[in-house]
Amino acid sequence: MNPVYLDNNATTRVAPEVLETMLPYFSELFGNPSSMHTFGGQLHRRIEEAREKVAALINAEPYEIIFTSCGTESDNAAIMSAVESQPRKRHIITTRVEHPAVLNFCQHLGRKGHRVTLLPVNKQGQLDSDTLLRTLDDDTAVVSIMYANNETGVIFPVETLSSILKERGILFHTDAVQAVGKIPIDVTKIPVDMLTISGHKLHAPKGIGALYVRKGTRFHPYIIGGHQEGGRRAGTENVASVIGFGKAAELARGHLGDDSAYLGKLRDRLEQGLLASCPNAGVNGDISNRLPNTSNISFEYVEGEAILLRLNEHNICASSGSACSSGSLEPSHVLRAMGVPYTTVHGSIRFSLSRFNTDGDVDAVLDVMPGIINELRELSPFGKKHSAKA
Amino acid sequence: MNPVYLDNNATTRVAPEVLETMLPYFSELFGNPSSMHTFGGQLHRRIEEAREKVAALINAEPYEIIFTSCGTESDNAAIMSAVESQPRKRHIITTRVEHPAVLNFCQHLGRKGHRVTLLPVNKQGQLDSDTLLRTLDDDTAVVSIMYANNETGVIFPVETLSSILKERGILFHTDAVQAVGKIPIDVTKIPVDMLTISGHKLHAPKGIGALYVRKGTRFHPYIIGGHQEGGRRAGTENVASVIGFGKAAELARGHLGDDSAYLGKLRDRLEQGLLASCPNAGVNGDISNRLPNTSNISFEYVEGEAILLRLNEHNICASSGSACSSGSLEPSHVLRAMGVPYTTVHGSIRFSLSRFNTDGDVDAVLDVMPGIINELRELSPFGKKHSAKA
Repeated sequence: MNPVYLDNNATTRVAPEVLETMLPYFSELFGNPSSMHTFGGQLHRRIEEAREKVAALINAEPYEIIFTSCGTESDNAAIMSAVESQPRKRHIITTRVEHPAVLNFCQHLGRKGHRVTLLPVNKQGQLDSDTLLRTLDDDTAVVSIMYANNETGVIFPVETLSSILKERGILFHTDAVQAVGKIPIDVTKIPVDMLTISGHKLHAPKGIGALYVRKGTRFHPYIIGGHQEGGRRAGTENVASVIGFGKAAELARGHLGDDSAYLGKLRDRLEQGLLASCPNAGVNGDISNRLPNTSNISFEYVEGEAILLRLNEHNICASSGSACSSGSLEPSHVLRAMGVPYTTVHGSIRFSLSRFNTDGDVDAVLDVMPGIINELRELSPFGKKHSAKA
Repeated sequence: MNPVYLDNNATTRVAPEVLETMLPYFSELFGNPSSMHTFGGQLHRRIEEAREKVAALINAEPYEIIFTSCGTESDNAAIMSAVESQPRKRHIITTRVEHPAVLNFCQHLGRKGHRVTLLPVNKQGQLDSDTLLRTLDDDTAVVSIMYANNETGVIFPVETLSSILKERGILFHTDAVQAVGKIPIDVTKIPVDMLTISGHKLHAPKGIGALYVRKGTRFHPYIIGGHQEGGRRAGTENVASVIGFGKAAELARGHLGDDSAYLGKLRDRLEQGLLASCPNAGVNGDISNRLPNTSNISFEYVEGEAILLRLNEHNICASSGSACSSGSLEPSHVLRAMGVPYTTVHGSIRFSLSRFNTDGDVDAVLDVMPGIINELRELSPFGKKHSAKA
């Protein structure tokens, strides 16, 4: 039985058209694009076609796209390249609410002697550009700020931030893993220097990502060896996944406007339904400037993990914060950075939708959630007085 | 029309059983293994099963296997970890005949202040363990020597080398990308500290690799972010490819003895047939200690690329050296390191077989090759006097 899958910020279903496009490249057209023979060499053109499609999704030039193995690699590579290309500058700026791929990598560089500034956010999860301005100095090598937050969906003012940094001549990288394919992004209008994309967040397979590097930006490869990707990322090209990624990008571009409206409508119905039927619940993050597919709701006086287990019994998939952190029992670093009280953080659930979700999926959650919340509050001595029956 | 594919050291066909095993993990069981819900979480167990299978292929413990995106990443990660875990040691030893994933990475570290020694090989492509001994000193952080050469198939004495280094307490990494799955490797008998495996060289898909890290060896992750792979390789697990890799490893383990004998027989018939029918041809590398699937033959007085183009017209895929280098027009660094004369290097062709090759494939090459070589020599003023007709 297919689950009601509302965890699309963790990963997405590979679109059927994407899988179909990939299939010939496993056991039939399985050559190495670097080979001299036609059997391998013909794949080079297919890879370039995929690069054109990924580039088109953010209005970039194809040669500005480097294929990588995942968003994490792209993030690591972007920040490392910025640091390596400016060996005298030792200051890195990022935010307290980044994905671990940026946050932990910056802290790794911090342990190796770099100075790392973590920018705060406010209670709505918003970033203040004045705070960024105050932390910039002549020693700043790179600023890495995500496009949209994976847990709350809050969108950062990347256009404004990147313009400020361009004026100051400071490299700017944005982890746009959650934004690309969900909202329109046009790199000709936003002067970012580097931008991370992940395939499996937009219905391509896991194990493929990309890094946009603006023309003229010096780039030092992170994975070093053969001449692949114009010498910018070594390793035999992941042909099937690259081609699948191209197809997924093409589909995402075609769906962009419709999907946004569809997802926003579904998400709002889910969110408003839950707020109306579950007392003492509230949305985390700036609701006026969010990804259309994401809703992060705190249910006071209950444990998020208990809610997830009950939802799981009903075959509903959601999450408490980032999948990358959910192995640990640490409360969400994003919600803590927003100053959400500890008890509220613990009762927070992230619902994240995709174009494969339906009204039926929303109904399924709305059907069971009030009962789950009430039951869990009844079980808790502290929550009992806040249950619907109280 | 399927080609006669004799370029299996560049990449291999995904085995049909491998692809079949992978398929459910794209659009059905597409969850994120780090998720709390059963839909994602159940994949964790499947990944561990794949890890057991990859470990079994080299007689390792499952927790000694880290999944990566490719052999190049594994090589980079192993060498970087060795260097990062011993910051006071600044000396790296490798060989002149390594794959670019090791050679270029070591030279990159050389530019950043490390001292890099490149060990020579003799005319048979063999490595002398005394030479290694003489280059070791108290400053040596790591030695990285490939298990078997990708161009000639020559197998290095990794057992002896690793014993020497173990005694001296120096970390030893081996790039075993070409050896794993072709010859038996048992890490309980060979005291290597780290060993690189690539999926697409053994009928798994491209974009998946592994690094064996012996229990007790300190390891610093290269791709940094989430907690995946026990904190040793961040990034959402490439579930389908990991599971395919497990299946490919299981198949390779089952086939190992039979395949070796079968490949050796096919390869020898191809090689002896070519030497008998094409005058002025010779085998590069130590023929007594080679991978059973590889033959590197120099045809004097002809250009290797011209041979490949003619073979390509007959739908036969072979290569001149490594696919990772073939984008450049540089002659093979491996054959040059062996002291093969420049003109001989230029006429060298690598045939590399897999269990999917047949006697018919060998016949196809033997049918056309004498004519190709003769014709090309006729066309060349220098080669004319050496053609069969002269």
